[in-house]
Amino acid sequence: MRQSKLFTKTQKTLPKGEESKNAQLLIQAGFIHKEMAGVYSFLPLGKRVMENIMRIIREEMNVIGGQELLLTGLQNPEIWQTSGRWADEAVDIWFKTKLKNDTEIGLSWTHEEPLTALMRNHISSYRDLPVYVYQMQTKFRNELRAKSGIMRTREFIMKDLYSFCKNEEEHKAFYEKAKQAYIKIFDHVGLGHVTYVTMASGGSFAKYSHEFQTLTAAGEDIIYIDEQTKEAVNEEIIADKDLGYDKNKLRKEKAVEVGNIFTLGTKYSEVLGLQYQDDQGNKRPVFMGSYGIGPARVMGTIAELFADEKGLVWPSSVAPFLAHLLCLSDSVEEADALYEQLQSVGIEVLYDDRHGMSAGEKFADADLIGIPWRLVISDKTLASKSAEVKARQSKEIELVPLRELPNYLQSKIS
Amino acid sequence: MRQSKLFTKTQKTLPKGEESKNAQLLIQAGFIHKEMAGVYSFLPLGKRVMENIMRIIREEMNVIGGQELLLTGLQNPEIWQTSGRWADEAVDIWFKTKLKNDTEIGLSWTHEEPLTALMRNHISSYRDLPVYVYQMQTKFRNELRAKSGIMRTREFIMKDLYSFCKNEEEHKAFYEKAKQAYIKIFDHVGLGHVTYVTMASGGSFAKYSHEFQTLTAAGEDIIYIDEQTKEAVNEEIIADKDLGYDKNKLRKEKAVEVGNIFTLGTKYSEVLGLQYQDDQGNKRPVFMGSYGIGPARVMGTIAELFADEKGLVWPSSVAPFLAHLLCLSDSVEEADALYEQLQSVGIEVLYDDRHGMSAGEKFADADLIGIPWRLVISDKTLASKSAEVKARQSKEIELVPLRELPNYLQSKIS
Repeated sequence: MRQSKLFTKTQKTLPKGEESKNAQLLIQAGFIHKEMAGVYSFLPLGKRVMENIMRIIREEMNVIGGQELLLTGLQNPEIWQTSGRWADEAVDIWFKTKLKNDTEIGLSWTHEEPLTALMRNHISSYRDLPVYVYQMQTKFRNELRAKSGIMRTREFIMKDLYSFCKNEEEHKAFYEKAKQAYIKIFDHVGLGHVTYVTMASGGSFAKYSHEFQTLTAAGEDIIYIDEQTKEAVNEEIIADKDLGYDKNKLRKEKAVEVGNIFTLGTKYSEVLGLQYQDDQGNKRPVFMGSYGIGPARVMGTIAELFADEKGLVWPSSVAPFLAHLLCLSDSVEEADALYEQLQSVGIEVLYDDRHGMSAGEKFADADLIGIPWRLVISDKTLASKSAEVKARQSKEIELVPLRELPNYLQSKIS
Repeated sequence: MRQSKLFTKTQKTLPKGEESKNAQLLIQAGFIHKEMAGVYSFLPLGKRVMENIMRIIREEMNVIGGQELLLTGLQNPEIWQTSGRWADEAVDIWFKTKLKNDTEIGLSWTHEEPLTALMRNHISSYRDLPVYVYQMQTKFRNELRAKSGIMRTREFIMKDLYSFCKNEEEHKAFYEKAKQAYIKIFDHVGLGHVTYVTMASGGSFAKYSHEFQTLTAAGEDIIYIDEQTKEAVNEEIIADKDLGYDKNKLRKEKAVEVGNIFTLGTKYSEVLGLQYQDDQGNKRPVFMGSYGIGPARVMGTIAELFADEKGLVWPSSVAPFLAHLLCLSDSVEEADALYEQLQSVGIEVLYDDRHGMSAGEKFADADLIGIPWRLVISDKTLASKSAEVKARQSKEIELVPLRELPNYLQSKIS
């Protein structure tokens, strides 16, 4: 995309009224806009990062057999009353509103109940199981405070997958598959090296669940890491005697929960009547699990972790563009041609073709926006039919012949 | 996709409590699920149709220079109070809710106000204009009644594009471009032949707007069509003397508004202070327009228009799959191989590989689901290494050699 056409402008200074580093930088660089506390819009650059993260998640969900659907934001109170999760005393993050006829309805903060109810139309026999469904859908949560930028908001897209199995054994096999898929996802988005599979408290069916915790000072959780096994435990259960951990032998770290996987058992299927007939003709409740990732929290975590004093630093798998082409010459033919050529071989390029801007301003914008590969074309580089190539996180500049650049960059796609 | 894995089941009978044909059929065939009146979830088949419609819309929005972003559902009352559209007396379809601190907030039913406010950060000079942005985002509208299935709901994804121009002249040129893009979109989704560009009432700036009205008995609007010019006028302005129409010379039809384009002028930019400096150094308000299409309404309209007594009929451009392969033979090797081969050349196939189902049941499901091309493999067709091919809306069956099928179907992709 030509930067002269991109409508967002970077800001020279950090925005006011933002406590969190991720929101400060993302607003300054034009990725997001704050509508009110805990509520952010995604501008074109931010939308592209979100789409990349969601694509990576979607690919892995499809690999493990997930079928994508889209449930609703507006929530019918009946099914939530049945499960005991409608009252504000039971769940303190509901947003509620009213129909014209004064009926109170809710805004979706999770989807176990509506999906369990829906599945009654489609699951009746053991032959219909297992089933795995997921969505990328907007959740609304009435958080008391919102000060972690896009890492904890009152409105956010969530990838939530739900599994429906015949029994605990079948569930456990899928749960393990989902865990491996999550590990792949966090590797792929660039967080693998600082993300720990973390034991956390479970629920009425399973004593424990698993969180995926990424180390960052911006996190709201405390985890304890076993350096040898690379396993971690959430502080909330470190004192659990069954686990036998000695917290003095573990490394204590601040972390953010970027994903979680959860055994629900028959909690919702029993209360909402989701049963199947087994191969002996007996009615049994379906055994369920839930699996969540918030793409915006992943984006915020990446912003927090990799940013430096000059701005954002995106891993190439989620970057809004792979290359940022800066034309510093008044002669634009070669830069125009390179832009077209790179795009024709599938490389996504932000092309800073803006006139009347100093090299310094263009460099500062490139550093702030944080695209992985910066390509500079100037009168000097054109003299040798080359471009200066620099990785965002590196200080080294390499002069690469223009004709070699397509191959050079294609090898960097991840 | 293998139908044995698809979790949705068709229903033998029409669902109860649905008045509209589109919702009845879409529920029966497993495309959607009713959460409550006017609120529907999209199941895998329905999600695929929605994605196809949104892809077609997105392509045309990108062609005319639209930049995609994503605004929020939760709405800050301040900007709406400024524009005079916060009070329930002014706008009677608001859903409102409350933050923990008792502040009342709204749910998005449109986005002129937040987007105009956002643009103040990015537009300051004539050099920043024109700008066109769009989103595929969820709108909430507190409709008094909901009885048109997915054609009028309380929650729906809307493609809304907004244009920001220097003046009326620049706006008019884009407005015409957007009109042409809309004509292409409705052609591409299969509604072109029954969709009319229709004059309708405007607003404070433009006396008229344009609606895209598709003829269907399920529509809530009345339009008058000039048979010679193929232009139409909404009943609401047919008596307008400036237009000079004689309604007795026009054909009266029921229709549904599948899209609209609207000149906003400086209504929102003036009240919310979105100004730019022109090339003479004068401050001027930005000249705006808005352009909407509801993908689910398009989907519902297609369902209404093309369905026959056996079920849904999808145009290939929006169909959940291009081909529905039915294996009626106990020997599945050839059908399996054909399924893999078709997919390898980019043809999307729903493969009815279910065991223990009669040919009649499979045919009935295929007719109900409405995929454009039905391929039947049976012992009889295998004897001549062929498949029976039938278009959903045709009665003719053709015997096509298996090896010719990939080319045969590739020519049907639209």
